[in-house]
Amino acid sequence: MTQINFFVPIQEYLDLVEYKMRTQSDGHHSELGAALDHLLSSGGKRVRPAVALLTGNMLGADTNRLVTLGAAIEMLHTATLVHDDLIDGALLRRGIATLNAQWSPAATVLTGDFVFAQAAKLAAETNSVPVIKLFAETLAVIVDGELTQMFTSRGIASKEDYYKRIYAKTASMFELAAAAGAMLSPVNDKVINKMRRFGYQIGMAFQIVDDILDFTGEQTTIGKPVASDLRQGLITLPALNYIELYPDDKEMASIMEGRFCSDDRMDRLVNAIRKSGAIELSISEARDYIDCSLETLEDQPETLEKQALVELARYIVYRDL
Amino acid sequence: MTQINFFVPIQEYLDLVEYKMRTQSDGHHSELGAALDHLLSSGGKRVRPAVALLTGNMLGADTNRLVTLGAAIEMLHTATLVHDDLIDGALLRRGIATLNAQWSPAATVLTGDFVFAQAAKLAAETNSVPVIKLFAETLAVIVDGELTQMFTSRGIASKEDYYKRIYAKTASMFELAAAAGAMLSPVNDKVINKMRRFGYQIGMAFQIVDDILDFTGEQTTIGKPVASDLRQGLITLPALNYIELYPDDKEMASIMEGRFCSDDRMDRLVNAIRKSGAIELSISEARDYIDCSLETLEDQPETLEKQALVELARYIVYRDL
Repeated sequence: MTQINFFVPIQEYLDLVEYKMRTQSDGHHSELGAALDHLLSSGGKRVRPAVALLTGNMLGADTNRLVTLGAAIEMLHTATLVHDDLIDGALLRRGIATLNAQWSPAATVLTGDFVFAQAAKLAAETNSVPVIKLFAETLAVIVDGELTQMFTSRGIASKEDYYKRIYAKTASMFELAAAAGAMLSPVNDKVINKMRRFGYQIGMAFQIVDDILDFTGEQTTIGKPVASDLRQGLITLPALNYIELYPDDKEMASIMEGRFCSDDRMDRLVNAIRKSGAIELSISEARDYIDCSLETLEDQPETLEKQALVELARYIVYRDL
Repeated sequence: MTQINFFVPIQEYLDLVEYKMRTQSDGHHSELGAALDHLLSSGGKRVRPAVALLTGNMLGADTNRLVTLGAAIEMLHTATLVHDDLIDGALLRRGIATLNAQWSPAATVLTGDFVFAQAAKLAAETNSVPVIKLFAETLAVIVDGELTQMFTSRGIASKEDYYKRIYAKTASMFELAAAAGAMLSPVNDKVINKMRRFGYQIGMAFQIVDDILDFTGEQTTIGKPVASDLRQGLITLPALNYIELYPDDKEMASIMEGRFCSDDRMDRLVNAIRKSGAIELSISEARDYIDCSLETLEDQPETLEKQALVELARYIVYRDL
């Protein structure tokens, strides 16, 4: 596994991103400050701001604007998580209580809205109309994806639907991070489009790996039951690959028809998927996305910044696999 | 009462605003289109877009950008109403079923988010960074106001709190409409600031009049019980004026202490407020705001566009009083 050292060249800027995010509640109600601190503390590794910072650094963007962009992206991500957790009724995220586990739905909706508002303010502070437009479009894609998922019967799934769903849910935000980093840099549209593709590809890989980890992780590590998606009727890539390998599997068919099988039968199905080769096919697909993403960087000179971006891309797919 | 003819010079543009709003769901899930149609059909008279259109028309803004701005403002207003109704559990708005009366809370949260996303997209399409920034700041002010109201004990109220609350709830959006209309026009910062004050003043008057109508309207007209705010422990200007006139009133004191009096005693209190002169004091204050708003227009040449804006300002305060 690659050493995770791509954070090193941008650690200083990531600290500024963190500071910028945490001071967004200044001057507002104190409860809001506490909520924002809580949300940001239960956040992840700031991979999305890292993509924006590394892309912009590689292409020569102004650092102040990149930091603002990084904060805007992570705030947008955070806002979507607040409403997601509320909708799913999730009580834990990364082992830490969600906002809705402690607050009323009303306060949770409004806090999510507040974080959206701050994300919009930060996006505007990049002073780049194309960046702001891409921001707004990305929010629309994410929300549209969630609504589509809500209105689509569970269990009915095709690879086409799956790719659309993970694009909306995850890849669109990585695309935004890389493309916006490029938009703030002195480069032409061709480079911006390449970086957009780079973001798309690492984002698709990121979600596929998440979906694989849902099958392969131990409950203690990921904090939810193994194959929690499938148990809720949500068909992800490992299950889709399993269906292609074993189109006549009866347990899988009953889930596809929206019928939930018993816990015992579900456990057997999950084990069957884990042993079927479907996981390996999924890993291979995620690695293909990363290989493609690295090709989009080929034109770039061999700088330290590029090397860090390459390592970030590799980290996404090799992290726990 | 002034003839409501200020819509006439901008009717064509308001139709374009309407079209732009209703086509925002194109290409998205069909349920979303139906929801957006429903929301926009239960909307009001489009006073906020009218303020933006008339201000921009008066100051020479490009019409296409004004139409985009008008649609962005009304979509932002609509999005806040969707989440408001959800939070309040309101089942009707203007006599039409709210979204949350028909949909799950989850779908309602996401639909509100979708409308926010579309508002953000439209704001970005004005191509004006100052307008976009003001947009994001206004959203933050509105949400912060709602959160403050949620975290503040009901019944505890001062005029200072009241003015802050109605600024966040209503005047901030009118301020946005007038200031952004000016920002898209070939005018200097001095004029932009005057128009911002104009928007602020008509917005404050607008909410005061709404709060007066809550006391003076008949239940059949406004679709909710008379003094519905007070019955929920929310103290608005007529009640605040009543407290100043009758500081020793015991019924009022019990509401101020958060104790709800019986329906009979509440009815007597509402009647007492209606007969006390508190309503007239409130009307007078709303008219003062409108007088001040008209002063901010004094420097403008006497054009038809200015006349329409003056009539809009007067309409706000004379509409049903």
